Amino acid sequence: MTELAINYQDIVAASLRIRGHAVITPLLESPMLNEQLGGRVLFKAENLQRTGSFKFRGAFNKLSKLAQAHQLTGVVAYSSGNHAQGVAAAAAHFGVPATIIMPADAPQIKIANTKILGATVVLYDRHKENREAIGQRLALQHNLTLIPPYNDADIIAGQGTIGLEAANQMLALGLTPDQAIGPIGGGGLITGSATALKQHFPNITLWGAEPESYDDAAHSIAAGLRLANKNPPSSICDAILTPMVGELTFPIMQHYLAGAKVVQEKHVLAAMLVCMQQLKVVVEPGGCVGLAAILNRSLAVKDRITLVILSGGNTDPAMLSLALNQ
Amino acid sequence: MTELAINYQDIVAASLRIRGHAVITPLLESPMLNEQLGGRVLFKAENLQRTGSFKFRGAFNKLSKLAQAHQLTGVVAYSSGNHAQGVAAAAAHFGVPATIIMPADAPQIKIANTKILGATVVLYDRHKENREAIGQRLALQHNLTLIPPYNDADIIAGQGTIGLEAANQMLALGLTPDQAIGPIGGGGLITGSATALKQHFPNITLWGAEPESYDDAAHSIAAGLRLANKNPPSSICDAILTPMVGELTFPIMQHYLAGAKVVQEKHVLAAMLVCMQQLKVVVEPGGCVGLAAILNRSLAVKDRITLVILSGGNTDPAMLSLALNQ
Repeated sequence: MTELAINYQDIVAASLRIRGHAVITPLLESPMLNEQLGGRVLFKAENLQRTGSFKFRGAFNKLSKLAQAHQLTGVVAYSSGNHAQGVAAAAAHFGVPATIIMPADAPQIKIANTKILGATVVLYDRHKENREAIGQRLALQHNLTLIPPYNDADIIAGQGTIGLEAANQMLALGLTPDQAIGPIGGGGLITGSATALKQHFPNITLWGAEPESYDDAAHSIAAGLRLANKNPPSSICDAILTPMVGELTFPIMQHYLAGAKVVQEKHVLAAMLVCMQQLKVVVEPGGCVGLAAILNRSLAVKDRITLVILSGGNTDPAMLSLALNQ
Repeated sequence: MTELAINYQDIVAASLRIRGHAVITPLLESPMLNEQLGGRVLFKAENLQRTGSFKFRGAFNKLSKLAQAHQLTGVVAYSSGNHAQGVAAAAAHFGVPATIIMPADAPQIKIANTKILGATVVLYDRHKENREAIGQRLALQHNLTLIPPYNDADIIAGQGTIGLEAANQMLALGLTPDQAIGPIGGGGLITGSATALKQHFPNITLWGAEPESYDDAAHSIAAGLRLANKNPPSSICDAILTPMVGELTFPIMQHYLAGAKVVQEKHVLAAMLVCMQQLKVVVEPGGCVGLAAILNRSLAVKDRITLVILSGGNTDPAMLSLALNQ
């Protein structure tokens, strides 16, 4: 068996590092939604996390470890926006410069917020340029540490604090979840969270969720090897449009996940509306694919207790209007 | 001096009654918004409360006391929607029937949700009929207890748990707020919360906020007696369109509040947009008048620590679209 990149203790250690810096996000629930769905569904609202997404957790854990080792001079990251803001906010906390490489077509709010957080933003063409190559070049030129979005043990452990927190919140409510689901882009969120949840709830069934045409995790888990989607069309789920899951995250997925559910855009928009109307929160398209998998009936929740991770809320008014007027 | 209807101990007692039933709502903050405003602003997110508004707190406290005294057979309430849902949810918890008298022009989501919660809804014409009279008639006919929306010591104490919770959350963050602001309809939320906040922070300055043309609290506090607005036009702030503050709430306002800030609809819509974009939460128009008072510069927040109470999030997609597309 491949040795996994992280274990439960790494997540506990990460939770101590981020304590007092990251928000302990609430577990939301709508009795009316529960009644409609015929089961109890609890939502971990990482859209209410600092910087508007869970990414701050992993970034802060990573930078905190680098700082402790006196290896933190400056950082560079490539990101469609959420990791960008997480890294920028963490860098600002530790007082080091951050350069973020973002696709030119990322939501304006994500680009603007990354700049407000003090980072230098370098835009690139997602269809023609290679962000990893740009990142490595800048890292070498300016002596910066590259902060990977997911394929890094400290990042995965940081994101795992979502699962640890949710587990403690469920226990405080006297609840044992039957299943949990969360978005998969590169897999940092779901693998870290799965590691923590499985420790507390050995019988839990764990699922990822991803958009149609970006179902590389579903195919990879089914095939037993990492596969990429070829020439996928554009998607509203900008936060999770990674071509392939990570080298480090994939073995953890294989170890813990039952599989990945695939959702269509119309269910993503429906999920955004449910979040606004029933939970009173704003969730971005890529952030609510887990709920979309419930709405399109690929994940059954009747008579079960289900944990859904909502990963972020950074989206433009135009996208929210689209969800409101469907 | 008039004896006030409640004191700090009543709120502590209420907090023990609602514990485990009401949500401990998070205190939200946006570092970016803080930077834009030049001060630290913390938001008590009662839109994330059970039933989508703070009203569940007061209703649950009231019904809990009635149940304890073996006086709970059934309840009736009049409400534009939030108190309706709060009373309906509390009645469902205690297993007694609830009849709710609602204006025919209340937001559809509030009427629908009140029915889903198991209550019988009686609609009335807000311009022609008297809801208090309808309520008293139904109470007599069916042996129901009238649950007033604000002019009741148990209701005020229940709403005061918002201030108590927020105080504890601020203390946990090591913060002493300079000022706090929250919506005024009948005055239950602000007077209960003021009582709790003043106990913890004796130097805090406390403000109410209300919509233009419904500025009866501002006038009443200034004049030293309860005044009503005459023939006000319609307003988007449906949750707080009460003609006059309560007999019990007014002396508490006089005792604790510095005054009431008045806001225009365009600032209410701007506040809704800030909530969606910066805080990632959905707040109804009447719920964000406190933030609107900051945006229209009637409440200065520069170099201060300010607590803003967001009271509810029950609003229709059409209203959210209006805020998104301003």
